[in-house]
Amino acid sequence: MYKYFSIFGFIGIAMLLFMGLNQSDIQKVSSETQECIDCHENVTPGIVKDWLKSQHSKIIPMAALQKNENEKKVSSKEIPSHLKNSVVGCYECHSLNPDAHKDNFEHFGFKINVVVSPNDCKSCHQTEVEEYSHSKKSYALDILRENPLYSLMVDTYTGDIRPDKGGTKIHNTFENSKNESCYACHGTEIEVKGLKTINSSMGELEVPDLSNWPNQGVGRINPDGSKGSCTSCHPRHNFSIETARQPYTCGQCHLEPDVPAYNVYKSSKHGNIFDSHKSDFKLKNASLIIGEDFTVPTCAVCHNSRIINSAGELVANRTHDFGARLWVRIFGLPYSHNQPKSPKTFEIKNQDNQPLPVTFSQIPAKEYLIDDVEVQNRKEKMSSICKNCHSTQWATKFFAKMDSTNAHTDRLVRTATDMLMDAYKKKLIDPKNPFDEPIETYWVNQWLMYANSIRYATAMSGPDYAGFKNGWYHLTNNVRMMQKEIERSSKK
Amino acid sequence: MYKYFSIFGFIGIAMLLFMGLNQSDIQKVSSETQECIDCHENVTPGIVKDWLKSQHSKIIPMAALQKNENEKKVSSKEIPSHLKNSVVGCYECHSLNPDAHKDNFEHFGFKINVVVSPNDCKSCHQTEVEEYSHSKKSYALDILRENPLYSLMVDTYTGDIRPDKGGTKIHNTFENSKNESCYACHGTEIEVKGLKTINSSMGELEVPDLSNWPNQGVGRINPDGSKGSCTSCHPRHNFSIETARQPYTCGQCHLEPDVPAYNVYKSSKHGNIFDSHKSDFKLKNASLIIGEDFTVPTCAVCHNSRIINSAGELVANRTHDFGARLWVRIFGLPYSHNQPKSPKTFEIKNQDNQPLPVTFSQIPAKEYLIDDVEVQNRKEKMSSICKNCHSTQWATKFFAKMDSTNAHTDRLVRTATDMLMDAYKKKLIDPKNPFDEPIETYWVNQWLMYANSIRYATAMSGPDYAGFKNGWYHLTNNVRMMQKEIERSSKK
Amino acid sequence: MYKYFSIFGFIGIAMLLFMGLNQSDIQKVSSETQECIDCHENVTPGIVKDWLKSQHSKIIPMAALQKNENEKKVSSKEIPSHLKNSVVGCYECHSLNPDAHKDNFEHFGFKINVVVSPNDCKSCHQTEVEEYSHSKKSYALDILRENPLYSLMVDTYTGDIRPDKGGTKIHNTFENSKNESCYACHGTEIEVKGLKTINSSMGELEVPDLSNWPNQGVGRINPDGSKGSCTSCHPRHNFSIETARQPYTCGQCHLEPDVPAYNVYKSSKHGNIFDSHKSDFKLKNASLIIGEDFTVPTCAVCHNSRIINSAGELVANRTHDFGARLWVRIFGLPYSHNQPKSPKTFEIKNQDNQPLPVTFSQIPAKEYLIDDVEVQNRKEKMSSICKNCHSTQWATKFFAKMDSTNAHTDRLVRTATDMLMDAYKKKLIDPKNPFDEPIETYWVNQWLMYANSIRYATAMSGPDYAGFKNGWYHLTNNVRMMQKEIERSSKK
Repeated sequence: MYKYFSIFGFIGIAMLLFMGLNQSDIQKVSSETQECIDCHENVTPGIVKDWLKSQHSKIIPMAALQKNENEKKVSSKEIPSHLKNSVVGCYECHSLNPDAHKDNFEHFGFKINVVVSPNDCKSCHQTEVEEYSHSKKSYALDILRENPLYSLMVDTYTGDIRPDKGGTKIHNTFENSKNESCYACHGTEIEVKGLKTINSSMGELEVPDLSNWPNQGVGRINPDGSKGSCTSCHPRHNFSIETARQPYTCGQCHLEPDVPAYNVYKSSKHGNIFDSHKSDFKLKNASLIIGEDFTVPTCAVCHNSRIINSAGELVANRTHDFGARLWVRIFGLPYSHNQPKSPKTFEIKNQDNQPLPVTFSQIPAKEYLIDDVEVQNRKEKMSSICKNCHSTQWATKFFAKMDSTNAHTDRLVRTATDMLMDAYKKKLIDPKNPFDEPIETYWVNQWLMYANSIRYATAMSGPDYAGFKNGWYHLTNNVRMMQKEIERSSKK
Repeated sequence: MYKYFSIFGFIGIAMLLFMGLNQSDIQKVSSETQECIDCHENVTPGIVKDWLKSQHSKIIPMAALQKNENEKKVSSKEIPSHLKNSVVGCYECHSLNPDAHKDNFEHFGFKINVVVSPNDCKSCHQTEVEEYSHSKKSYALDILRENPLYSLMVDTYTGDIRPDKGGTKIHNTFENSKNESCYACHGTEIEVKGLKTINSSMGELEVPDLSNWPNQGVGRINPDGSKGSCTSCHPRHNFSIETARQPYTCGQCHLEPDVPAYNVYKSSKHGNIFDSHKSDFKLKNASLIIGEDFTVPTCAVCHNSRIINSAGELVANRTHDFGARLWVRIFGLPYSHNQPKSPKTFEIKNQDNQPLPVTFSQIPAKEYLIDDVEVQNRKEKMSSICKNCHSTQWATKFFAKMDSTNAHTDRLVRTATDMLMDAYKKKLIDPKNPFDEPIETYWVNQWLMYANSIRYATAMSGPDYAGFKNGWYHLTNNVRMMQKEIERSSKK
Repeated sequence: MYKYFSIFGFIGIAMLLFMGLNQSDIQKVSSETQECIDCHENVTPGIVKDWLKSQHSKIIPMAALQKNENEKKVSSKEIPSHLKNSVVGCYECHSLNPDAHKDNFEHFGFKINVVVSPNDCKSCHQTEVEEYSHSKKSYALDILRENPLYSLMVDTYTGDIRPDKGGTKIHNTFENSKNESCYACHGTEIEVKGLKTINSSMGELEVPDLSNWPNQGVGRINPDGSKGSCTSCHPRHNFSIETARQPYTCGQCHLEPDVPAYNVYKSSKHGNIFDSHKSDFKLKNASLIIGEDFTVPTCAVCHNSRIINSAGELVANRTHDFGARLWVRIFGLPYSHNQPKSPKTFEIKNQDNQPLPVTFSQIPAKEYLIDDVEVQNRKEKMSSICKNCHSTQWATKFFAKMDSTNAHTDRLVRTATDMLMDAYKKKLIDPKNPFDEPIETYWVNQWLMYANSIRYATAMSGPDYAGFKNGWYHLTNNVRMMQKEIERSSKK
């Protein structure tokens, strides 16, 4: 008798528990979010389903707060009490800080923000948002707009160029072409131009009229004034930590020819092993265990993920200041140089009064850049990750190669820059805009494409990008072609 | 007693059922196909195994006809009775319509066609074949061959070019080089030049001698006169619907630099999420459920797959007319323009009597192109797919960006075209062949590479292809280089 | 009673067996390796974990020797007795042949080699190492260094080039830039410069000071004088046969623009099917079963894997001489030509006394190249693999296309070479270094980039690489641009 009871009793309790859990799960969706879902599961089923697969739909912040350090994904010490006991649903995110949100509007009885901003995410993920706010990524738009040289470059390369007196002239700038190229990654400034009526599947609706939208650039300026877009890397509405750790996420923007980080990774041994064995990787865990959750690093492992060893001991902290383990800046500028101290790189002025960290004659603006002690400090931080798989000598020699590569590519950029200066001196071309004549294009290619590629190729061991694919073959041939162009221009 | 019976009885029935099913499966392979397999499982084991994994080997058309609309993969209302009750094996496909097939031959007692054509597949998949026959894809070969401008372009870029009187001249055309480049995607015309003897592993055999073979281009002209090759996207001998829905399939032909659809997708957020989570996608189901079978679209989801919601309601119909949801044509021609009404684009004549949908001075050949009502209609068709995940405003603004991008890239193509016309007027170059002089190459690059890339980059949000990767950087620099080339040519 | 015994007895025996196996596994790690692991599982946990996933950690050579031919991964008939009965751990590999290893050093009481070389792996994998030693891969470094033309090319494209008297001059060579580009794939010569003290996480340690390290190029010259690096394709410390068979491994070096094997594969139908269905592939098995372990070939399937049919019969032998099934050499040199007889291609001298297999006027150095009988022999070897899925006619016509493509691309290379020779004759440029002037760069691009791409595109059916992506479009336009450059140079 007892035997039967025990079996049926167990099944019964299990069933009750199961039903009970389901019941309580349902209770944990806030009534507001439930109302959102009631419509949106018909209107936009894709995002509702995506959210249902997310961690946000499965755990209440109160429970998330109680996880141990290795499993924790929320970083705020305190979470506002009205958010603690419901899963993180539509309303929890889209209703925050309404006064700050110029995009807040009345939507079927609720006050809703169209855009969820880092400042909203901060309610639970404070550390990440704060770290991010100190990173160059969060200033990515201003880094382009507020730097007069970069801003001129953007206009020169995205405008309505037409022939003019034997040369060319920018007739007009195209806002859309900036938004769709440079600012698509760097971020746009979203503006709210009042309300407008749209014709939705629910009939006519009044919604905020957003300009420079949609956009998910890393330095987006949001309608609440905050900077950044968490969905750049944690796409809606799953917001997965796993997605952000896949190289494809970084590869949305860090691509050849100007920033070939993703491409070099793909052709590196790390990339090869990732591609060959990625189905065995476990990138969902809050803290990644060396050799268990991953065999080789993805971008995130080296640059910002929390890493632990099998014993659960911390090896590297999570950081959302993506430059925190970087000592040298290898792209986007003629010469490699120590990382800037401040993310507001548009504030830099070098000795020649240029908004650049290094003058054309290679003098660094030292007061704006980290010093050699900090360089060494960051090298060791990064190296401490390499050494979980590689010997000390391996890591040291690897970094020494990078120093050489930077010096040698800088030398070749210097050659092209000297040639450019010489062409200015000889009045072959007009120095006013350094981006708009063929000789200048050779110069831009020299650093923005070829020197960059080679530095990345060494940084991650993807030799094709140091050789024939935008590498040394081009870096040296470009000097030859530039010289020929200068010679020909001299004769006109 | 009863208890024991019930258990053993159940197992026994299950075993009998299992054996029985196997038995009946075997019976459902036709005797002809069984004879094929008897040899070919030794001679070409790869394709026999591949077929064994296919749906074709697992279901008889009679049963396929009875599936409900959401699960159905056959579209013919009636299937010829001799095909209904065997699985779709070697003989079922390779023996159809022998009189039409110039490649039919006697093969170990059977009359076999080498090439299975869309007209053969039509026996079961009538709707798909009919839709396909109205698509530009099915006319892809004639679109190149029958358009004198395109045909000249093909010859100019694949021929035996040699220096000639200070310039260059096409000495000879290379049929093989056309077949291996342009026609590899567009399709060849397969010709049967009688029989020939080959030395196979079965000894000497007489087989039809096919020329322009092998080929699997989308506009292939088959030995039965039909157009297309279903294996372009549903590769032999698995013929999987799943394969056709993977972006890699489209990526065989829709690649940078001229049609960077695949590349832009890969670097888009959709592509990132697909790459990050594709192991969770279920692309085998006849109708794809939003948010369950896929989280983000692959090419097929937006362009042609049958999509339903969780309730089983139809969201979008399957179509094999791949332009059915497209309103604007953004590649392969200088200016973007409304889609052509007919797939036979070689019939178009514009006001300047060119076989192009838009004149060099940007006047569209309106009578050959869909009108604005149909444009709006198709925008809404496509938009209705976007809106399963995105808001109405998002979709609207997204499409508005595309309009801007098309206008701005057209403007830059116009600039280059005006420069070309001016060079013709000044007799700097010969207008007879607009593809064979360096100034003309700048012009071709302007639209065929750079304007195309930028339009795709906006269409799918892959900003690198609007920026430094064949994007605005090149579109504007190319004008500068073209201007320099014209200036230099003026001085000779 | 008996009943209960049988159940509990079975479980008990199973448990004992299970525990016993574990026990004996542990015993099979040598005491030396156990000492390595005791430290290194803390110091470099990543590689210890990686090794634990490897076959090396799971089987003793004695057992590996007893596997049947289809399952065997060791090829040595005899394995040294001291290696036979422990799993292949740290010490087993890093202690071999200490007298030959200039990188041997005292490490916590053990004599350890830093670098494990093919000569060490040979203890168990004799056939593979011997085959490899006859392949061009093992001579990859000398093929560049010992061929004066290639060596000049490397220096020209990786050096400190500067303007000089209206042209340019190589001011200095950069060893690091060679190591990070050409030699990263071809291999460096690792030199041991005595011992040095490093600061490791275990405190100060004396280790051999290696130069040109780290490197994993295929022709690396190791501190024991042996050539090659098994980890090029079987990366540490998993050494997986599966990794080596993934296309990503080959893709580390065989990449566009100069050797676009990987890229062409990716855009081919084989590549599409692999990408679409790779999760179903079983690339771990020592012998790959056609249609079961793979549906379409990866690089390894056609070039070197052991292939069997479902009956277990041998279809193709494993080979580590990667050219064994190749008849024609299609990259890295102006003209396609029969494969060289010897891997020491630097020994070749043609009729014009150049270290090239074909003269500029297309006369092959026949005595150094395989003859037509051997060409036919290898075509048949390769064709026998194709025919497991494709008909005899398909394979024959496929190879005939390749012959045409080679002839036609050679014709276009000849045109450019004749133009170059003519420019030399007219003293427009200096013939001393054929790589360092713009006219010569057009010539190099003609063969090293465009002709190569087209040949690969045909060899694996990836038509984009025969068309707009470094294909015929560029091959013909490059003649036009080169002609224009020559014309302009003539006028100075």
